[in-house]
Amino acid sequence: MSSFANSASTREVTISNAPPYVALKKGEQLPTVMTVATSDPSGGAGIEADLKTFTAHRCYGLTCMAALTAQTPEGVYAIHEIPKDHFKLTLETNLRDMRVDAIKTGMLTKAAVEVLYETFGAMTADERPHLVVDPVLVATSGSTLVKDQSVIEFIKTLAPLATLLTPNAYEAGRILGHENLELKSVEDLVKTACEVQKATSCPNVLLKGGHAPWVDAKGQKRVTDVLRLGDKTVLYQSVFCTSENTHGTGCTLASAIASNLAHGESLQHAVFGGIQYVHNAIEIGCTVTQPHVKHNGPINHIYAIKQPLQEMVEDLSYSAHALRVDDNRSNSTASSSSSSLVSQIRDSGSFFDYLIADPRVKPYWESYTRHEFVKRVADGTLARDKFRFFLEQDYAYLDNYAQIHCIAASKAPTTEDFDKSVHIVSEIKTEMEKHREKMIRQFDISDMKHFDQIKMGSALRNYARFFDDVARNGSWIHLCVALSPCLMGYGHALRNFKDKITVPKGDIYHSWCEDYLAPWYVEAMDAGLILLDRVCQMSDDWDTLCKIYASVCKLETEFWDAALHYSPETD
Amino acid sequence: MSSFANSASTREVTISNAPPYVALKKGEQLPTVMTVATSDPSGGAGIEADLKTFTAHRCYGLTCMAALTAQTPEGVYAIHEIPKDHFKLTLETNLRDMRVDAIKTGMLTKAAVEVLYETFGAMTADERPHLVVDPVLVATSGSTLVKDQSVIEFIKTLAPLATLLTPNAYEAGRILGHENLELKSVEDLVKTACEVQKATSCPNVLLKGGHAPWVDAKGQKRVTDVLRLGDKTVLYQSVFCTSENTHGTGCTLASAIASNLAHGESLQHAVFGGIQYVHNAIEIGCTVTQPHVKHNGPINHIYAIKQPLQEMVEDLSYSAHALRVDDNRSNSTASSSSSSLVSQIRDSGSFFDYLIADPRVKPYWESYTRHEFVKRVADGTLARDKFRFFLEQDYAYLDNYAQIHCIAASKAPTTEDFDKSVHIVSEIKTEMEKHREKMIRQFDISDMKHFDQIKMGSALRNYARFFDDVARNGSWIHLCVALSPCLMGYGHALRNFKDKITVPKGDIYHSWCEDYLAPWYVEAMDAGLILLDRVCQMSDDWDTLCKIYASVCKLETEFWDAALHYSPETD
Repeated sequence: MSSFANSASTREVTISNAPPYVALKKGEQLPTVMTVATSDPSGGAGIEADLKTFTAHRCYGLTCMAALTAQTPEGVYAIHEIPKDHFKLTLETNLRDMRVDAIKTGMLTKAAVEVLYETFGAMTADERPHLVVDPVLVATSGSTLVKDQSVIEFIKTLAPLATLLTPNAYEAGRILGHENLELKSVEDLVKTACEVQKATSCPNVLLKGGHAPWVDAKGQKRVTDVLRLGDKTVLYQSVFCTSENTHGTGCTLASAIASNLAHGESLQHAVFGGIQYVHNAIEIGCTVTQPHVKHNGPINHIYAIKQPLQEMVEDLSYSAHALRVDDNRSNSTASSSSSSLVSQIRDSGSFFDYLIADPRVKPYWESYTRHEFVKRVADGTLARDKFRFFLEQDYAYLDNYAQIHCIAASKAPTTEDFDKSVHIVSEIKTEMEKHREKMIRQFDISDMKHFDQIKMGSALRNYARFFDDVARNGSWIHLCVALSPCLMGYGHALRNFKDKITVPKGDIYHSWCEDYLAPWYVEAMDAGLILLDRVCQMSDDWDTLCKIYASVCKLETEFWDAALHYSPETD
Repeated sequence: MSSFANSASTREVTISNAPPYVALKKGEQLPTVMTVATSDPSGGAGIEADLKTFTAHRCYGLTCMAALTAQTPEGVYAIHEIPKDHFKLTLETNLRDMRVDAIKTGMLTKAAVEVLYETFGAMTADERPHLVVDPVLVATSGSTLVKDQSVIEFIKTLAPLATLLTPNAYEAGRILGHENLELKSVEDLVKTACEVQKATSCPNVLLKGGHAPWVDAKGQKRVTDVLRLGDKTVLYQSVFCTSENTHGTGCTLASAIASNLAHGESLQHAVFGGIQYVHNAIEIGCTVTQPHVKHNGPINHIYAIKQPLQEMVEDLSYSAHALRVDDNRSNSTASSSSSSLVSQIRDSGSFFDYLIADPRVKPYWESYTRHEFVKRVADGTLARDKFRFFLEQDYAYLDNYAQIHCIAASKAPTTEDFDKSVHIVSEIKTEMEKHREKMIRQFDISDMKHFDQIKMGSALRNYARFFDDVARNGSWIHLCVALSPCLMGYGHALRNFKDKITVPKGDIYHSWCEDYLAPWYVEAMDAGLILLDRVCQMSDDWDTLCKIYASVCKLETEFWDAALHYSPETD
């Protein structure tokens, strides 16, 4: 890069492979949902709300647009219908090339209803994806989007093919031919739901009560949604939200239900989750309009979305580690026979031996437990400032290590496992105390604040980040496996270099080496072996266990690398 | 509901108000991003990919569509252009009524570019939102979407108004007038990025290297993306992904960058996060096409999205608790002066006194600490089976309580706080031991498995769910506040009924009462007061602290309600 090597303003940043490290599988089989509806460019309703809802439910979203509106919460300003041919081609190509687990329909044009009826009518019941029909006739803002009575007729045509029809009170009235249907009680709602079910021949009908709140004995405004599930009735009761943020509630409910169906939930549960989602999204709301827009703001579709991405943006240390062990994933032959391998080992006994012998782990285990750093401590040739750097980093590491054991404790399946983890925490705290004493004696540290102010180096930050990721996304099993290499590796490394310990007794290097060969440490390792066997037996995913073990061995290697290559200038 | 009271198949379900309980504010000011681009109905690219990306970044998405394609990863089958008037009206109404923090443009039509230029040209630099221009000329699948050379000219017209232009190698070539620009080295990339910057007058240019991978000394295929940031150069290096899932990468990168900008990130960080996001999305990928589609599948936009909604769907107990204390939120007058209240109390000392006196907490604290259950234990009139039910539930509660203290420990800001939490855990374990002994003596329990098999009642489940939610979404402060009412309330309740303890000494009821009046318990409460003061002083959000305290007092009340109303038939 000679052409700009002189430019002081050039900076290199390395991008890592995919975190999170544990929870994700390559080529994830996401549930897929297609919205067949109209666009609301202001984002609160229509296909925009649908896509947000699918995404918030961890579903893959597809679209097929019948029309585009120009609208905001203030009103609908224009409608542009999509030509029938283009709509038809879109529907066909999506159904031909893409997997579609569920479909949600929203505001449709006459042309769109015709195409849908043709397409779905030609499928057998088995071929048809789940179909949730939201018979949108009026936007919440009060504008009548569809004036053509014939659309209602077409919706009735479509309804027998659908899994669920989700009218509100007004739409139910229009479907039943009453312009002003009054729903004053829960009895009215149930009666109307049954009538809609009969009139449309849709097997299941959800009549939404949001437009017809009622007041309970305590004066609390309440809403009841009525699900006719075949010949059963389920009532979903909730407190009426007085929020201004109600733009897009109908679209969102149908989309949430479709997403839950795509995930394989029963209809009754899918509706429950959908109502709850919309309820929360209304309750929380969001402020995204200009100040002059006073009413009918959008609901908050993304209230449940965490932003792990935030850390990714802000913390460059996140990037320094690649999931290098993953590069071989696609070549892995062990992958397909993973569970049978687990049962094989289960019979023979020690998972630890298999783990460190696995071709995906072995190189990292070897470079960790035969590390130059340990050799240099053993023969006394390591510079003292490097060792001091290591001890300080290790002290900070132990602090984190104890925290992660606490999280492991909180995830432990039995009281016994819980108690063991808590016991380990107190042992680590004792070890930290010893570290402190060593450092005070050896390096003349007088200010105890020193230990709270240790600056984490990048190797430690990466290691801590990995632990944090497993703690957040992994199970108790994953966490136990991640915590194992530190315990096991130090013992094995010192065994490997036992004959090379030539540094004189009394030297801090000597006592450091002896610590990891001492009986108490060997006992701790034996307990660690038993725990590792226990957790591995609980898992059927050998690949992930290997991946974690390899990753941590690599992080340990880099931890020692950092100490070995430490110099005060690079601090 | 007489009309269907006889129907055995009717079921009622109650929907609660919004969880999560802690992390969310009403009317959240979400960052907003508008995509001005073309629809890809198959969901992998275009405005669909953009909306997914905004959502994954916890941004509110808006759209303004220039055209709709009918396409899948297999190819582009048709393009339907949106009339200029409709496009213009959409852009205008969005900018007029909605807050727009950042805009991303993707594939555009000539008409769209003209309208954009007109609109943005009329704004001052201060008025213009962040504008990220992705000069889409070719879809990844190889189809040329825009053939008109004049669109390139228009993009150049738009570029001086943009924050960032994000061409790939092919697009850079077209912009510079070379049909086949060869980029063989990092030097070539940097040179070309500078030339594009000069040719377009765009202040910042990100030249994407994905189409021009290179091989490093170790034979590893690598990608370098070059950011010209004014007169600085930043290189982002990453490992080349050999995935088939590359459909929509360009759209997604520009959208992720725009999202990060809307969040207030610097351009350099926004680009870093964007590249990392796309890298991960490619690496993870997803399987959503039909089996005959072999190549160019979509990337996984939602890899980082957790699915807390899943629990909502599956666990009905989740619904039983409303954030009833929230109902008053909109009427709350304390809300606006929250921080000043905190500093007021900070001067005077005890946060606990203020907490239980706050009008939002007081009624729940009172009903908890003056509970009939305690009175009935004190005067010996509580049925033994109700007490047994309570003790068992309390035993299971303590198990959970210890776990949550472990999580609190893992979040503790100092070693001292950490040690205290761990100490509390061991105390709770001792208390559980005592409970066990009491129950064995009183109720003739011989099988120790009994204690592991206690079935959690719904009051306990709800309580545990609340703790879990705070543990997941709350800070250490929130968690400490949530853990306080149990400790403080039992002590205060027993003080309130001290004069009513008429049950004879030696009775299990008597010793239960005495336990919470004993010196060791008073000491524990004193330590709890000190901790509560410490954490409250660290917070500026008095409303949330009150909300949590009130919620937990309510859960405690319901815990005792459940015991008081327990009968073997309802078990």
